[in-house]
Amino acid sequence: MVIVSKKSSTVEQLAEITHKIEKLGLIAHVVKGHQQYTISVLGKTEKIQTSEFSMFPFVENVVRISKPFKLASILSNPDGSKIKVKNLVIGNSHVVVMAGPCSVESEDQTMRIARAVKAAGATVLRGGAFKPRSSPYSFQGMGLKGLEILKMASEETGLPVISEAMDLEGLKMMMDYVDIIQIGARNMQNFSLLKELGKIDKPIMLKRGMSATIEEWLMSAEYILAGGNRNVLLCERGIRTFDTQYSRNTLDLNAIPILKSLTHLPIVVDPSHGTGYRNLVAPMALAGMAAGGDALIIEVHDKPEEALSDGPQALLPTDFEVLMKQLVGMGDVLNRPVLKESTTKKAA
Amino acid sequence: MVIVSKKSSTVEQLAEITHKIEKLGLIAHVVKGHQQYTISVLGKTEKIQTSEFSMFPFVENVVRISKPFKLASILSNPDGSKIKVKNLVIGNSHVVVMAGPCSVESEDQTMRIARAVKAAGATVLRGGAFKPRSSPYSFQGMGLKGLEILKMASEETGLPVISEAMDLEGLKMMMDYVDIIQIGARNMQNFSLLKELGKIDKPIMLKRGMSATIEEWLMSAEYILAGGNRNVLLCERGIRTFDTQYSRNTLDLNAIPILKSLTHLPIVVDPSHGTGYRNLVAPMALAGMAAGGDALIIEVHDKPEEALSDGPQALLPTDFEVLMKQLVGMGDVLNRPVLKESTTKKAA
Amino acid sequence: MVIVSKKSSTVEQLAEITHKIEKLGLIAHVVKGHQQYTISVLGKTEKIQTSEFSMFPFVENVVRISKPFKLASILSNPDGSKIKVKNLVIGNSHVVVMAGPCSVESEDQTMRIARAVKAAGATVLRGGAFKPRSSPYSFQGMGLKGLEILKMASEETGLPVISEAMDLEGLKMMMDYVDIIQIGARNMQNFSLLKELGKIDKPIMLKRGMSATIEEWLMSAEYILAGGNRNVLLCERGIRTFDTQYSRNTLDLNAIPILKSLTHLPIVVDPSHGTGYRNLVAPMALAGMAAGGDALIIEVHDKPEEALSDGPQALLPTDFEVLMKQLVGMGDVLNRPVLKESTTKKAA
Amino acid sequence: MVIVSKKSSTVEQLAEITHKIEKLGLIAHVVKGHQQYTISVLGKTEKIQTSEFSMFPFVENVVRISKPFKLASILSNPDGSKIKVKNLVIGNSHVVVMAGPCSVESEDQTMRIARAVKAAGATVLRGGAFKPRSSPYSFQGMGLKGLEILKMASEETGLPVISEAMDLEGLKMMMDYVDIIQIGARNMQNFSLLKELGKIDKPIMLKRGMSATIEEWLMSAEYILAGGNRNVLLCERGIRTFDTQYSRNTLDLNAIPILKSLTHLPIVVDPSHGTGYRNLVAPMALAGMAAGGDALIIEVHDKPEEALSDGPQALLPTDFEVLMKQLVGMGDVLNRPVLKESTTKKAA
Repeated sequence: MVIVSKKSSTVEQLAEITHKIEKLGLIAHVVKGHQQYTISVLGKTEKIQTSEFSMFPFVENVVRISKPFKLASILSNPDGSKIKVKNLVIGNSHVVVMAGPCSVESEDQTMRIARAVKAAGATVLRGGAFKPRSSPYSFQGMGLKGLEILKMASEETGLPVISEAMDLEGLKMMMDYVDIIQIGARNMQNFSLLKELGKIDKPIMLKRGMSATIEEWLMSAEYILAGGNRNVLLCERGIRTFDTQYSRNTLDLNAIPILKSLTHLPIVVDPSHGTGYRNLVAPMALAGMAAGGDALIIEVHDKPEEALSDGPQALLPTDFEVLMKQLVGMGDVLNRPVLKESTTKKAA
Repeated sequence: MVIVSKKSSTVEQLAEITHKIEKLGLIAHVVKGHQQYTISVLGKTEKIQTSEFSMFPFVENVVRISKPFKLASILSNPDGSKIKVKNLVIGNSHVVVMAGPCSVESEDQTMRIARAVKAAGATVLRGGAFKPRSSPYSFQGMGLKGLEILKMASEETGLPVISEAMDLEGLKMMMDYVDIIQIGARNMQNFSLLKELGKIDKPIMLKRGMSATIEEWLMSAEYILAGGNRNVLLCERGIRTFDTQYSRNTLDLNAIPILKSLTHLPIVVDPSHGTGYRNLVAPMALAGMAAGGDALIIEVHDKPEEALSDGPQALLPTDFEVLMKQLVGMGDVLNRPVLKESTTKKAA
Repeated sequence: MVIVSKKSSTVEQLAEITHKIEKLGLIAHVVKGHQQYTISVLGKTEKIQTSEFSMFPFVENVVRISKPFKLASILSNPDGSKIKVKNLVIGNSHVVVMAGPCSVESEDQTMRIARAVKAAGATVLRGGAFKPRSSPYSFQGMGLKGLEILKMASEETGLPVISEAMDLEGLKMMMDYVDIIQIGARNMQNFSLLKELGKIDKPIMLKRGMSATIEEWLMSAEYILAGGNRNVLLCERGIRTFDTQYSRNTLDLNAIPILKSLTHLPIVVDPSHGTGYRNLVAPMALAGMAAGGDALIIEVHDKPEEALSDGPQALLPTDFEVLMKQLVGMGDVLNRPVLKESTTKKAA
Repeated sequence: MVIVSKKSSTVEQLAEITHKIEKLGLIAHVVKGHQQYTISVLGKTEKIQTSEFSMFPFVENVVRISKPFKLASILSNPDGSKIKVKNLVIGNSHVVVMAGPCSVESEDQTMRIARAVKAAGATVLRGGAFKPRSSPYSFQGMGLKGLEILKMASEETGLPVISEAMDLEGLKMMMDYVDIIQIGARNMQNFSLLKELGKIDKPIMLKRGMSATIEEWLMSAEYILAGGNRNVLLCERGIRTFDTQYSRNTLDLNAIPILKSLTHLPIVVDPSHGTGYRNLVAPMALAGMAAGGDALIIEVHDKPEEALSDGPQALLPTDFEVLMKQLVGMGDVLNRPVLKESTTKKAA
């Protein structure tokens, strides 16, 4: 951490800062410029907030040098985390494709789509039983019944299942039904929920908040990791920008190589929410894989016009099949092949 | 709602849409342009989502005409809501000033600051017992002990108290201690929590999410209103924009006259979080009042350099006193006087 | 400037940096942390770019301490600049109100509106002869004919005139016709034009780019100042954010107290473009003045439905009259009275 | 275009609107809802602005159905434009890679880098002679001397050259030296310059403004097209968002498939400016190609620590070589091969 004093600051004020630094068990190293002091703070500063010093009225600027996250840092696991989900691994040299409907709407609908995405090569099934909806008048998900349907689909197809938890009650319910807990963008800084997630041992897929910085996102992952759960996946799902006329969000693929340099946690890309429109999903899925994503999560629906949520962004099963072929081809060229079920079985 | 078809759309596709419109109990009125159909949907469309129609592949655009919120709409209460908090009212012709420390840190600290803000003219006391912090390693608030201290301060000064709830457990705890429940920006779309807030009868101050649109914000208020709790205050606390070098957030004062035209809910302005720096607070408090805010909420600390959270943005009691005098002067000129305790007592 | 090396950096790499620092005539002061070097750069660093050092592959971070602007800095003129425009001064203890139509559309229209805004108390007349329009098919302004009309209106009313220049050719044309040259948001970083503006001696009102940071804006002012023209006004006209449903831009009033702490240049607030809708203009004009603006610029049209540009945001003359009365009242309370023509005349 | 009236609007007001519609040579089709009128406007509405109607005080909303751009629209050339640059074509089934230094700094530097990028497989040479710099104190480019060097490099290597024009004077100078004129992000809405570009017949590469919407960008292209120059390339170079800690801009790859559905103009992706940091360039170049880009433009420097501009984002020639191999591999799999010089020659 580097602290810069204001031009007018006095020796007494400098002493106040160095005193505080020492009280925190750190070492202050002062450089006197022609008008200002620059104070380097040495020692374990990860858990110190910059505001500890910026609140002094005579401090102009405080700059963090070491990152505020520790367990999520690449330094704590330079080889990258490998997250085991049943008999497959995310964060490996393989790219994992998750697919399925936005919402579980009925047994029939879920079964049909689960079979279709499996046939096309997906190795994880997605589907929502609890739906965060901006309107209280929209379909809110099937709840427990939806979880039961997901489990049936998982058992029939052999695919592990990912589904979203919105609160503590739902989280408890899900423990027996799903293999990966998804935390949505709107709950990325629901700190009470993050603390609970730290206490369980299921993999968590933490979606990026709509306007969360990379650092805030990693700090939210840090909450889960610090609680004791080391199985965290990060999911880029589009950020909010000034232009929403032709896509609902802006899929931030810059985030992928940035995260690769900062953290060991595997990265999932969601081109469905990241764009919001069917015709953008395939190109952005390919781009997400090319940028280095460890997994993709894609919404598929065979009757999008009847979908109870997010129909406009769902791929048809036939479109998904075509996309899978392109992903497989690209994976071979990039030396990061798409994980196939047969590989999964062999690994098991 | 107006639906526009794609250029290539056929009569059969048009029939699919009009069929769906009628199934929803609405009336379709079709206008045939030289290349496209424009379909006006007449009837009660408030609770219909645009995605019901945009998911048809041959639909180009769906435009909502009536607002998606109903209970929050100005049409449901053109005179504006008046929210009663103990013996004062927010949403009246008076402007209410809430002030106090960011966090309750000790009995002594809270008492000192409570007395100071009362002396300067504040009529509501603020203070956090549960703190949403981006780092798991930061001070997380005193919890129940903090609530007890707040209640003591309230009893001594006679000021009603506002404090933040982060989850269901905290919410239950607060019912006996605080007069207004604050919901923070990060929980604005915590829909599970919003549903619980609809079931209680305490006033809720709902802060705007960091990148929430006006409409999303009103839809979150709609969750609480639809649940049965009609005592909702909206709090503008700064949005996230591209420039954070000199202020942590951008206080969006445009939102105030916009909200006045859309909703009957009273509006609180938070110039402390809305700027993040002490030297910006007073000018933006004045601006927030000039733009039409019904109340202000301002952080005050007498030893900001020892504050356990948000020290850099806290006003000193002496600065707050000066600001109060300016607000009072401006209120008289604008015909929206600052509420004084004597007025409160008289009203009681 | 403070440079932080990467964790793996070597003594040789450190020497490369210190060598470069010394070559630039600056002094390097190195602090060795337990893993990284922190190098304070002492001396005249205003004109050094951070990229001079960040381009070394073994540098992790470079932080500027002194500001990159010098002539625009508050340090170069702590009392604040007073910009003389004919017989009035902007940047004084008075608040100046500029008003008029968006575009000059005809002699009759301009005269009518000029008289109306003068009668209501405006002391500068605005009006566009060259219009930056996002569509090539929109009205592009009357050009030279428009300038002639503006001059006539100025002569009749005695009000000085502000109008926008879009290029070098237009700038030359304007020299004999207008008193303040306005540079629009889209040209804020038209560096070729900024260099030309540095060579003339007319006051320039530099609008903030739609997504320009405070620092970029001040650097654009620095271009003009460094060219030799010290008469620069800064105009906040709304920034682009994620929500444009109910206002075209977000008027960033935080910028006003921020600028007051950074620069001596007077600040103009444009609530017309800053909101885009008539019903938001008056509240935001009041807020802009309360936040500390030195001047306001407001669009007025007596037949907004016939306006050739920006009709939806123009105030009617009667609305403008009401607003002026409120501004005058507020100015008295805030000790920054609205400049009146009589005051102007006395000063002359 | 669809116009929606306010709830309170009268038959007389409705008549005012329909009268205006008819005066514009269009047809009004009115639908009366239970509270509001919806008016469909039929006819050639491309050149009509929504503000023509939104300025009526009794109009609530105006929605454009047909796009405001016409010549840039995919409808005007469904097969996509093929832009000829010397003996190569952009917009074909091949992907073109442009590479070179940010700035021309010396003959030696430019020659060395030109040879290196050619050897690695680039088929267009980039290099700046006029540099838009946010600080007036930064290196502003070599000007004419730089253009001469670029031409020498072009003649030796046989690669066509792209370079940026910032104003009319520079544009004239460039006509004899460069093969593609680049217009930078900051000049995307320099309408005076756009009009001049419409009068020449050289290909123009129009970069997206930092916060330009897709539609504004296409309208700027429309300026050039409407002026008579049909050789326009669009270049996505990163937009400004809320997070700039780890990348200077956010490369908006969603824009690529969106543009493919809206326009026939070829799309270039700039992963160098789109990220700002060397380590992000290769993954984002791959992603840009996977998302459907017709060309890439990449900064390469063999001594980035000595570069006079943008050193931190330049790839080393060896890194560029590795990237080219990956791009070639991916192109084969995606059926959009990277254009090779041999192909160029054969085509010539």
